[in-house]
Amino acid sequence: MQGLSQKNLSAVIRSRPKNSHKGTFGRAVLIGGNETYGGAIMMSAEACVKAGCGLTSVVTAEKNHTALHARLPEAMVLDWTLTHRLTDLLDTADVILIGPGLGLTSHSQQLLALVLQQQKPEQRLVIDGSAITLFAQHHYALKYPKQVVFTPHQMEWERLSGLKIDNQTVTQNQAVQRQIGATVILKSHRTEIYTSNAQFKNPLGTPAMATGGMGDTLAGMIAGFLAQFDDKEAAICAAVYLHSLIGETLGTEHYVVLPTEISQNLPYYMKQFENTQNKAEEK
Amino acid sequence: MQGLSQKNLSAVIRSRPKNSHKGTFGRAVLIGGNETYGGAIMMSAEACVKAGCGLTSVVTAEKNHTALHARLPEAMVLDWTLTHRLTDLLDTADVILIGPGLGLTSHSQQLLALVLQQQKPEQRLVIDGSAITLFAQHHYALKYPKQVVFTPHQMEWERLSGLKIDNQTVTQNQAVQRQIGATVILKSHRTEIYTSNAQFKNPLGTPAMATGGMGDTLAGMIAGFLAQFDDKEAAICAAVYLHSLIGETLGTEHYVVLPTEISQNLPYYMKQFENTQNKAEEK
Amino acid sequence: MQGLSQKNLSAVIRSRPKNSHKGTFGRAVLIGGNETYGGAIMMSAEACVKAGCGLTSVVTAEKNHTALHARLPEAMVLDWTLTHRLTDLLDTADVILIGPGLGLTSHSQQLLALVLQQQKPEQRLVIDGSAITLFAQHHYALKYPKQVVFTPHQMEWERLSGLKIDNQTVTQNQAVQRQIGATVILKSHRTEIYTSNAQFKNPLGTPAMATGGMGDTLAGMIAGFLAQFDDKEAAICAAVYLHSLIGETLGTEHYVVLPTEISQNLPYYMKQFENTQNKAEEK
Amino acid sequence: MQGLSQKNLSAVIRSRPKNSHKGTFGRAVLIGGNETYGGAIMMSAEACVKAGCGLTSVVTAEKNHTALHARLPEAMVLDWTLTHRLTDLLDTADVILIGPGLGLTSHSQQLLALVLQQQKPEQRLVIDGSAITLFAQHHYALKYPKQVVFTPHQMEWERLSGLKIDNQTVTQNQAVQRQIGATVILKSHRTEIYTSNAQFKNPLGTPAMATGGMGDTLAGMIAGFLAQFDDKEAAICAAVYLHSLIGETLGTEHYVVLPTEISQNLPYYMKQFENTQNKAEEK
Repeated sequence: MQGLSQKNLSAVIRSRPKNSHKGTFGRAVLIGGNETYGGAIMMSAEACVKAGCGLTSVVTAEKNHTALHARLPEAMVLDWTLTHRLTDLLDTADVILIGPGLGLTSHSQQLLALVLQQQKPEQRLVIDGSAITLFAQHHYALKYPKQVVFTPHQMEWERLSGLKIDNQTVTQNQAVQRQIGATVILKSHRTEIYTSNAQFKNPLGTPAMATGGMGDTLAGMIAGFLAQFDDKEAAICAAVYLHSLIGETLGTEHYVVLPTEISQNLPYYMKQFENTQNKAEEK
Repeated sequence: MQGLSQKNLSAVIRSRPKNSHKGTFGRAVLIGGNETYGGAIMMSAEACVKAGCGLTSVVTAEKNHTALHARLPEAMVLDWTLTHRLTDLLDTADVILIGPGLGLTSHSQQLLALVLQQQKPEQRLVIDGSAITLFAQHHYALKYPKQVVFTPHQMEWERLSGLKIDNQTVTQNQAVQRQIGATVILKSHRTEIYTSNAQFKNPLGTPAMATGGMGDTLAGMIAGFLAQFDDKEAAICAAVYLHSLIGETLGTEHYVVLPTEISQNLPYYMKQFENTQNKAEEK
Repeated sequence: MQGLSQKNLSAVIRSRPKNSHKGTFGRAVLIGGNETYGGAIMMSAEACVKAGCGLTSVVTAEKNHTALHARLPEAMVLDWTLTHRLTDLLDTADVILIGPGLGLTSHSQQLLALVLQQQKPEQRLVIDGSAITLFAQHHYALKYPKQVVFTPHQMEWERLSGLKIDNQTVTQNQAVQRQIGATVILKSHRTEIYTSNAQFKNPLGTPAMATGGMGDTLAGMIAGFLAQFDDKEAAICAAVYLHSLIGETLGTEHYVVLPTEISQNLPYYMKQFENTQNKAEEK
Repeated sequence: MQGLSQKNLSAVIRSRPKNSHKGTFGRAVLIGGNETYGGAIMMSAEACVKAGCGLTSVVTAEKNHTALHARLPEAMVLDWTLTHRLTDLLDTADVILIGPGLGLTSHSQQLLALVLQQQKPEQRLVIDGSAITLFAQHHYALKYPKQVVFTPHQMEWERLSGLKIDNQTVTQNQAVQRQIGATVILKSHRTEIYTSNAQFKNPLGTPAMATGGMGDTLAGMIAGFLAQFDDKEAAICAAVYLHSLIGETLGTEHYVVLPTEISQNLPYYMKQFENTQNKAEEK
């Protein structure tokens, strides 16, 4: 198992091409946020936009549109009951994230089924939160497993893998990953990443980050990184490491670090690692 | 009567366990915020989240959901007319706070009755604001008085205790506390705490804090501290003292200190006292 | 005509009494904000709360409640169609402000008529914006003119006084003030104040403040100062001067100063002048 | 083709006249923001207000009013289905901006047709975003082309001009501009401006600005500058240059620069260039 480090950031966060426009940095469609858990998808959206995604659309209960826009006018919104328009929107996506605050209703399930069925070979798909639970309950299949990322915490991984938490060893996790075929980000105080080729372990993470919404923020960062960076495995590793690095850094001065503070600090920290890389190359 | 001091903070605000997750720091359910006083429960929620509670749910009039989420996507929301879902939600709570902006209608009363009836032996219950008035009017009984905290200001204490403000002496207050059995936080410019075992007096507090919403913020802090810290009496003392300490500190540079500014500063000040404690132990 | 100066601030902004609570610093009821001009009453409310008013209630179109609360949970709200509840609320007020964003409909007029009719002898009443126009159009009478403050800009003063802008000389303005009996704050780039006893001229003000909402902010500050300070004439002078002083100071670094920035800076600047006064007395 | 530089800023951003009021700095009416793209018009409005426009009104789907006000109480709002009131409002405008988030429905088209038909000879009109596409689709005519500014990106310019992106050379662009008669701001990573008399090229711009909403912010800045500055061509050049200058400056410390951050920094940067000019004249 490889340890993540700052090298994983400087490998990915490079100077942007000068002749570029918003389309260059990808289109993400984020789906989630029901009547109760609307804040989850708002936090994902903030992370995605501030991670540098070119265009971010949020598909959520209409009830959540105003709060989302009050915080983040940069995002576009779609009422998640308008499935005919969702179909068109999904067609334009480079990355789809489904799950933060999605809930477990039949409507949630229909949205997940639609996304799974409509995924195109070049689209990345991140399945998070209650979408993982729904996926496990309904025994869905993946059309393009190598394009898919699951982001379970330990209980969700139990549902998805069938492995009790005590049995979630590296060997067992890797075995299940091979069956599923998708990348698995197993979140805990020391998050692990399982791909078909490699295993990574995050050495960072602080109990100051143990507060509701941290996972939603990570999911949004992953979507934003997948949207704009070409090496997808490297992008995932960078997102996981940077999320914890910012949390640890803020946690040296704050007893608890709010998820939205991670997002606010993304543009600054990303620049730091772009500069590090540039300096290294100058030498 | 013991005076509160910074020792009450360093006794409680300790370094968090490394192997932890959001569930480690407790689940709080906050109930209040009608059509007019919606801001009250928003302020409680901000205090609870920023005090470090792991998961905070807010049960309030649906009208308030959007403003709450625009300020605090970290909280979950539930329309307070959905009492069947409230029943399920209460089941998951470590701490319940009822009262900020609750109002005095029959619906408010039903919510209070439901909470009182459903309280489980291990759950802490904070009764604040109009819930105190309703409690006094309707002569409710407490199932687990030792698990309950009342946070009256002097008029509310008059309603609850029957003691006119002029008669609210330490002896009389303590006598009533013994009848009720719950902890009483009697708010004034020098707040007093009465438990079955002890009496505490807060030496801090500034007139810069004399503005609407300060009590709602304190109530949210108490809920957040009860959710995450094991020694409940110590947690209450720490919340009361820290609320005033932050207010006094900010008040040296601001003529009036807004309640939401107290909450914004919580993570920073809590970290200060964690560090103090760590340094003391190193010696 | 007396020039306003920093003495007008230090005369009013004194250290608060230690044994005080939110009621000590007054209750303000602010009425305004229709479907189009909702932002006006939000800006008044921010100014009133941050000026140190103990309790601020906002009576406005329900459409505006969520945005107000998203910015300022410290305020209470009332749907302005609920006139029976408004009657009760007005009864509790120390200061009433009517006008910012009120509009000129028959409902606006009914609200103004209700306020004028219900004013109690000890209540201060500030009439601003479209409420001045309505007052002029409908030839209302004041029950307690000495308790009333009008805050017209030059066009509104023309409507109220009958004086064309070119004829708005000090002598003429004073003559009309004597007929009306109320205090008049005639807003321009050099605002003038006319009372029954005195005339004041504000030497400050910057074109950086020439942006929509500045008057709404001033009206809110006046309400907040009247709510908490005993010498009402002095409170009005202090509010007018401080509004411009903050604007000028911020204007040295900003080409345009937003009204909400004035409000955000109120607690800091008020503290500065409390300290000035304390130091002067120590000598 | 002339290169833009800081001289274009100091030529326009001059000290404001002392005896001025909000009317001195113009009235802007901004039209756009449908159910999905509401954030676009919010970003335009923030840019317009913070660029120093005296009075800013936003005509948008009612759904967007609350989020707009939560961010920016300084703006006025009008439900864009109330076309009779829009007619009156347009009558008062110095500058009209239509397009950010307008969409392509028949209602969007009716709004554009109304604006084009009602434009008065002294009013400036900025046509942005989907309004450009609608304009091209429906072959509308301009009543006062010299008063009009189009702000297409390259795809929109293809629709408007008929020039494929590869054929968008300076010569070809200028030829089409002469047919249309309006000013054209052709947005790319090196934006070009075509007027009847001159061509300008922006040497600035950073890929950190390649994120959704940058164009909406630029459109709002242009409206704000046209509202308050007399030399309209110079105002347009200054807006284009300053937008990129702020973006580049923030981009040295942030990997991605959000559009709303450009707006937040406007008052500070504008002051810098006012001061530069003043100092130059003192010498």
